[in-house]
Amino acid sequence: MREPILLTPGPLTTSLATKAAMLVDWGSWDAKFNALTASVCADLLRIANLGDGYVCVPLQGSGTFAVEAAIGSLVPKDREILVLVNGAYGQRMAKIATVMGRKVSVLAVSDGTPVSAAAVAEALAANPAISHVGMIHCETATGLLNPVAEVAAVVQAAGRALILDSMSAFGALPVDGLPVDAVISSANKCLEGVPGMGFVIVKQSALVQGQSPSLSLDLCDQFEYMQKTGQWRFTPPTHVVAAFRAALDQYWAEGGQPARLARYQANGDALLAGMKKLGLQSFLPADLQAPIIYTFFAPHHPGYDFQRFYQAVRARGFLLYPGKLTEVETFRVGCIGAIDQAEIQQAIAVIAEVLAELGWSD
Amino acid sequence: MREPILLTPGPLTTSLATKAAMLVDWGSWDAKFNALTASVCADLLRIANLGDGYVCVPLQGSGTFAVEAAIGSLVPKDREILVLVNGAYGQRMAKIATVMGRKVSVLAVSDGTPVSAAAVAEALAANPAISHVGMIHCETATGLLNPVAEVAAVVQAAGRALILDSMSAFGALPVDGLPVDAVISSANKCLEGVPGMGFVIVKQSALVQGQSPSLSLDLCDQFEYMQKTGQWRFTPPTHVVAAFRAALDQYWAEGGQPARLARYQANGDALLAGMKKLGLQSFLPADLQAPIIYTFFAPHHPGYDFQRFYQAVRARGFLLYPGKLTEVETFRVGCIGAIDQAEIQQAIAVIAEVLAELGWSD
Repeated sequence: MREPILLTPGPLTTSLATKAAMLVDWGSWDAKFNALTASVCADLLRIANLGDGYVCVPLQGSGTFAVEAAIGSLVPKDREILVLVNGAYGQRMAKIATVMGRKVSVLAVSDGTPVSAAAVAEALAANPAISHVGMIHCETATGLLNPVAEVAAVVQAAGRALILDSMSAFGALPVDGLPVDAVISSANKCLEGVPGMGFVIVKQSALVQGQSPSLSLDLCDQFEYMQKTGQWRFTPPTHVVAAFRAALDQYWAEGGQPARLARYQANGDALLAGMKKLGLQSFLPADLQAPIIYTFFAPHHPGYDFQRFYQAVRARGFLLYPGKLTEVETFRVGCIGAIDQAEIQQAIAVIAEVLAELGWSD
Repeated sequence: MREPILLTPGPLTTSLATKAAMLVDWGSWDAKFNALTASVCADLLRIANLGDGYVCVPLQGSGTFAVEAAIGSLVPKDREILVLVNGAYGQRMAKIATVMGRKVSVLAVSDGTPVSAAAVAEALAANPAISHVGMIHCETATGLLNPVAEVAAVVQAAGRALILDSMSAFGALPVDGLPVDAVISSANKCLEGVPGMGFVIVKQSALVQGQSPSLSLDLCDQFEYMQKTGQWRFTPPTHVVAAFRAALDQYWAEGGQPARLARYQANGDALLAGMKKLGLQSFLPADLQAPIIYTFFAPHHPGYDFQRFYQAVRARGFLLYPGKLTEVETFRVGCIGAIDQAEIQQAIAVIAEVLAELGWSD
């Protein structure tokens, strides 16, 4: 049987060209590898399109490592970060800041509710100790798109800095010209690379030596060393960087951000329409839904069990994703990666077949 | 031209079978991937062979991330770590502990001198605040093999815990039965995987919740979550893990640690003999030299320039490694990776050719 297609929010299905780029060993000290790193960073800056004064700092590890690096490197030890929470990734950001000993306040709303720019303005007015606001662009726990432009404007007006976790959105949903101090993402989401590195697009003036409580996760140190030598401070994931370069080549060939978004939107529309026909209802209303990952209520049958559902769909060649809500039984389906409507239609046909076989059809 | 052969201490030249294992996308939530992770960890425990009570905790990022995770997760906030330094990697370990706010004392000797077990005993007797000792197995900055068994015995006798950075040695140089709390290494050294993950073999009883000053680098949290779910807490470098599995299969097929060490020793012996014929002198005496990476004094010619040397050797298909000593001009040659004496002989022939061409032969 062929390898399964990943309908997940990353790691996701990548193209063969992306994976084949890993068939070469690179010297981490070699000028050719330095050029590879530099070209990846230049492309990420171009995609972000935030204006002058920003630099791209790549970091080894998962995207969460890059989120921790951004908070530790940017938020001063004696100030406070306000984290906007409407799902698991917002909660994680607050936890990261708490564990590293930063003062944290949380503005939380329920899982299906976008964060409110007005509430952010109020919270900032009430607490002058807050220097930074942390928010999630697309909350992967549900698939919800937060109002980044509105919140960014409010944070800017209050003279504070925004750290935007755009992990599952960057490259498909634009951040062009947003007034932010940092945008964080990783190779293995909408840019369709393989996992093993994240990156932070950050205002260079926000990078201050000696602020980070971690050497490995110090963005300022990583940036300054790279600027001086062209190299990563510590062993880079060379094959992952090479795959990322190949994935970015394909990104431009496809037509960049507008084309990437259009494909994902078409995937998402096909997914929603197909699931609706099967009686599977989406958790989010259409106007809050990012075309990245979709949360569906589980079939309303007493015998429903996600593991059985997952295994039966897997046996037919597709990987679904578990739900991440505590109150209601859900599952998730991603529409990102090197897939288009053909794979989405096949997945819907498979889900229909499985629901009928297990007696869970409506 | 073919891709160059890496005579470096990792990332290194890997086999095609190892790289080809990256041609598959894995779901990070999938049972098959969990089984892959579990089998890698089981193999690493078997290689370490430290006895009962140890667990293997894999970690995203470079090996340095795993060193930082071990120190942060194991050394209590109110205690002190004694770091034994005779090169750049010992210095880095002390810096990591300092940046995270741990109290650190350093026992330093010069670059070509092994750390002394007697001096460690003395330092521990003099300072009861020290709970942990950190040391480097093979100091990659020079290639020096430190006396791990002697130091481990002294640390154990003093009732303290040893954290052993065996980054460039693990899998080739044995750690069997050593009385240590933790042994740290990464995929892309003597086990010949690709870079992107490290691991810590650690005494399970040493893992305490809430001790780590970092969420991403919390070994206890990573272990407990993995034990409960089979999954990594945050996105794993799936392709890197798959390559590591393939590399470990080849490790056992070759004959495990004794065979790996024998091949590297033969590579190193051939390298030393060949370089000696070219008049290139080794920095370390034979009894201090680990068969991993070799430091050579630069040719004694006034026009010598490492960049020109490197580029000329590179143009003929081999990557050398720069020296990491501040006092004397050196360069390094690694003898690890998926290479044997054929590649070493070819490299020596190339170096001879280049030295003659550049007029630097003795």
